[in-house]
Amino acid sequence: MEKIQLANDLSLSRIIHGHWRLKDWNISKEETLELVEYCISQGITTFDHADIYGNYECEALFGEALKLKPELREQIELVTKCGIVLPSENRPDHKTHHYNTSKDHIIQSVNQSLHNLATDYIDLLLIHRPDPFMDPAEVAEAFKELKQEGKVRHFGVSNFKQSQYDMLQAHLEFELVTNQIELSPYNLENFQDGTLDLCQEKRIAPMAWSPLGGGDVFTSQDDKAVRLRETLKKVANELGTDHIDEVMYAWLLSHPAQIMPIVGSGKKERIDRAIKAQSHTLTRDQWFEIYTSSMGYDIP
Amino acid sequence: MEKIQLANDLSLSRIIHGHWRLKDWNISKEETLELVEYCISQGITTFDHADIYGNYECEALFGEALKLKPELREQIELVTKCGIVLPSENRPDHKTHHYNTSKDHIIQSVNQSLHNLATDYIDLLLIHRPDPFMDPAEVAEAFKELKQEGKVRHFGVSNFKQSQYDMLQAHLEFELVTNQIELSPYNLENFQDGTLDLCQEKRIAPMAWSPLGGGDVFTSQDDKAVRLRETLKKVANELGTDHIDEVMYAWLLSHPAQIMPIVGSGKKERIDRAIKAQSHTLTRDQWFEIYTSSMGYDIP
Amino acid sequence: MEKIQLANDLSLSRIIHGHWRLKDWNISKEETLELVEYCISQGITTFDHADIYGNYECEALFGEALKLKPELREQIELVTKCGIVLPSENRPDHKTHHYNTSKDHIIQSVNQSLHNLATDYIDLLLIHRPDPFMDPAEVAEAFKELKQEGKVRHFGVSNFKQSQYDMLQAHLEFELVTNQIELSPYNLENFQDGTLDLCQEKRIAPMAWSPLGGGDVFTSQDDKAVRLRETLKKVANELGTDHIDEVMYAWLLSHPAQIMPIVGSGKKERIDRAIKAQSHTLTRDQWFEIYTSSMGYDIP
Repeated sequence: MEKIQLANDLSLSRIIHGHWRLKDWNISKEETLELVEYCISQGITTFDHADIYGNYECEALFGEALKLKPELREQIELVTKCGIVLPSENRPDHKTHHYNTSKDHIIQSVNQSLHNLATDYIDLLLIHRPDPFMDPAEVAEAFKELKQEGKVRHFGVSNFKQSQYDMLQAHLEFELVTNQIELSPYNLENFQDGTLDLCQEKRIAPMAWSPLGGGDVFTSQDDKAVRLRETLKKVANELGTDHIDEVMYAWLLSHPAQIMPIVGSGKKERIDRAIKAQSHTLTRDQWFEIYTSSMGYDIP
Repeated sequence: MEKIQLANDLSLSRIIHGHWRLKDWNISKEETLELVEYCISQGITTFDHADIYGNYECEALFGEALKLKPELREQIELVTKCGIVLPSENRPDHKTHHYNTSKDHIIQSVNQSLHNLATDYIDLLLIHRPDPFMDPAEVAEAFKELKQEGKVRHFGVSNFKQSQYDMLQAHLEFELVTNQIELSPYNLENFQDGTLDLCQEKRIAPMAWSPLGGGDVFTSQDDKAVRLRETLKKVANELGTDHIDEVMYAWLLSHPAQIMPIVGSGKKERIDRAIKAQSHTLTRDQWFEIYTSSMGYDIP
Repeated sequence: MEKIQLANDLSLSRIIHGHWRLKDWNISKEETLELVEYCISQGITTFDHADIYGNYECEALFGEALKLKPELREQIELVTKCGIVLPSENRPDHKTHHYNTSKDHIIQSVNQSLHNLATDYIDLLLIHRPDPFMDPAEVAEAFKELKQEGKVRHFGVSNFKQSQYDMLQAHLEFELVTNQIELSPYNLENFQDGTLDLCQEKRIAPMAWSPLGGGDVFTSQDDKAVRLRETLKKVANELGTDHIDEVMYAWLLSHPAQIMPIVGSGKKERIDRAIKAQSHTLTRDQWFEIYTSSMGYDIP
C-alpha cells in the first residue's frame, strides 16, 4: 500500500483504519488485536483515534489490544485528537459540551491518551474542532512542549476552515501536517468552500472522515441519495464491481490531493473494499458524473 | 485598567468610550468634560469617534469639551473614522449616501476631524467601511501623507472582511493596527466568518462595536433574544450580579483575541458595568453556553 | 486607447473584443477580417477566445480571417482558454461535460488552438474554470513547458475564487497575470465575495466577461432589471447619452481595479459604445447609485 509522507519522519498509510466505533463493535481485546494485525498485513498501518470516541473509552480498548503485542507499536502510526469536552459518565467533572484548547487541557488530554493507548508517543495529534474561544498562542505552547518532551511527533487539525488554519499556523514554529475533514461523494462542502484548495495550496494531504458519507447513500430515499446511488451503481458496473463503496473510495483516492480515507468499519470485507478501491482508476468522465450527480446540477 | 498595545507607541485602554450618540445625550460641554474626566479616572483613556456621528456634529461637541481643559489631550487616545458620505443639513453638498476613500476625501476629512476634535493629531484613524470602489493605492498615499505630517499616528479599518483587509494591507508600507467590528454575544457573524480569526492571525486586537448587540437582548421578544437573555441571566446569577450587560462585556473580555469593547453610553452606571465586567471570569462552560444559546443549536 | 500592462512584455488594450459568438455572427472570413481591422483601428488590439467557443469552431473562424492578412498578428494580442470538455459533433470522443486540467489535455488544447488561430504563439492562456479535480502541480508543468517552447507567453485563470487562485499560484514558478471574471452592474458577485479584492491585492487587472450582464438589464421585467435599468437611464441622461450600455461600460472602466471589459458584439455601433464609454467619468454618487440599485438595498 502507498504511504503518504506528511513530514520528513512521518508517513501514513494511504488508507487509515478509524476507531471511532471500536466500542460498538463489541469485540474482545484479542479480536481487536487480530483486526489490527489484519490491517497491518494489508498495509494499513495508521490508526485514527480521538480522546472522546466511544464516550472516552475507545483509546483504552485499543491500548488493551496493543498491550498483548507491544512490538506492534513500531510498525504503526497512531493518530489521536483533543479539544472537545463531552459530558459523560466517564468524565463526571464535565458539565457541558464545549471545546477546550487551553494549554493545560491539551497536555492533560495527551497524557491520558498516551496512557489509554499504551504508548510513549503519539505520531500525530489533531485539534478536533476549530474552537471559537481558541488562543492560538496557547495551543502553540502546548504543541511545543509536547514535541520537546517527545510525547507527540507531529501536529495537525481537523474540520478547520482556511481562516482557522491560517490563524493557528501563524502562531506555530512548525508546519501543521494535515487537516482531517469530511470528504465524500455525498458531502462536497470541503471540495467547494476552499478547504481542500487550502490543503493543495499548502501541500498537506488531508485525512477524510466519513468517506462513504455516513451511510445515507446506501439506503436513504431522499432525492440526493437516490440520484447519487444510481450514478455510483452505473460507475461500479463500468468498473466491474458490485460495491458502490469501492467506487466512493476510488473517487477519493483518484483525486490529486492525496486524500487518505479513514475506514471506520470493524468488518474485514468492508476494509477489503477500501483496499480494492486502489486498483480502480476513474476516468474524468466518471469522476465528474459522480460529482455533478451529488450536486444535483451540472458544472458551468 | 489594562492597556492593549497596538503598536510600539500606541496603547488603547481595554474599555473604550464611544461617542456615537454624544449628541443624543444632550449634555453641556461642561458635562461632557466631566464625563470624559470620569472615564479617565476609571482608566478609560480611549475615545471613539467618526466624522459622521451625530450628523457630523459629535466630534465638535467633544472638541468643545476638550477646549475647556486642553491638557487632557496628552492623557487620552482619540480614534476617529472617515470614508462614509452622508446627506445632511450639515453637509449641503452631499447628494447621496456613498463611500469615498479617495486621497482627497480622506485628507479633507482628517483635517476637519482635527479641527472638530480641537487637537493636532489623531491617534488612530479608521476607514469606516470597506468601499467597493476603493483604490488601495490612493488610500496608501493618503495614509502616508497624514503620517508624515504628524496628523495621524496609526491607521486601521472598520467592518473589513479578510479579502478587504488583505487588499488594503498589501498596498501599505506599515501595518494596520486594528479592525473595529461588531462583536457581541448577540451577533456572532465576525466570530464565524473568519474576521476574528484574521485578527488573531495578524495579532491585531479588534475594537468591538455594539458589544451589547444593540439592545435587543434586553427587551426583544424574538426567540433568539429571549433564549440568550435567559442564558445571560443564568450566568449573571452564577457570577453574582443582576446585570446581563456585565456578562456580555465579560464574555467579550474573556476571549483571547484581546477584544476592546466600545461602551456607547453616557450614563456612568452603565460605564461602570463594563468596568466591573473585568472582574468576572467566565468558565469555558459559561462562555460556550452563551455562544450556543445565541446560535440556537449546539456546536458539533 | 489605454493599454493595461499585465507583465513586462504583455499589455492588453483596455477594451477587448470577445469572439464567443463569432460563429453566430454568420459572417465571412473577409468580414471577420474587416471587423478585426476595425477594432485595431480603434485601439482594440486584444481578442478573447476559448477552445470551446462556437462548439469548438470560433478559433478557426478567426484563424481563417487572420490568414488573409498574417501581418496583423504582430499588432494584436490573442487570449484563449482551455480546460472545459464539451460533448460536441466536432469532438465525437467527448462523452460527458467535464473539466480537464491535466498536463496532456492543456498541451493538446494549446496545440489545437495554435493551429486554429493560425499563429505560432498565444499571448495569454487561461484555465477556463476552476477544476475540482485539478492537480496544480500538473498545471504548473504544462505551463512551464508551453512557456519554454514559446507557445504561450503568459498565463492566467478565469472564474477562479481566492482559494483556487492561491492554490494554483502556489505551484507556479511565475505569476498569473489575470483572472477573467463576470463583472457588471447587473452581477455584483465578484465585487462582493472577495474575488475583485484579490485582484486588487495581487495587482492583477481582471478581464470582465458579460460586462452588460448578459442582456437582461435591457429587456427583462424582473424587479432587479427594471430597477437597475431606470437608474442606468437616469445616469445616461446625466452623462448626455441615450445608451445605457455606455453607462455600464463606464461603470466598470471607472473602477480603480483596471477592469478590462470584453465586448462580445459583432456590430460596430455596439463596439463604438464601449469605446465611447471611456470618455464618461462617473461621479462617486453615480457609481454608488448604480451599485445600490443593483443590490436592491442601501449600503450600511
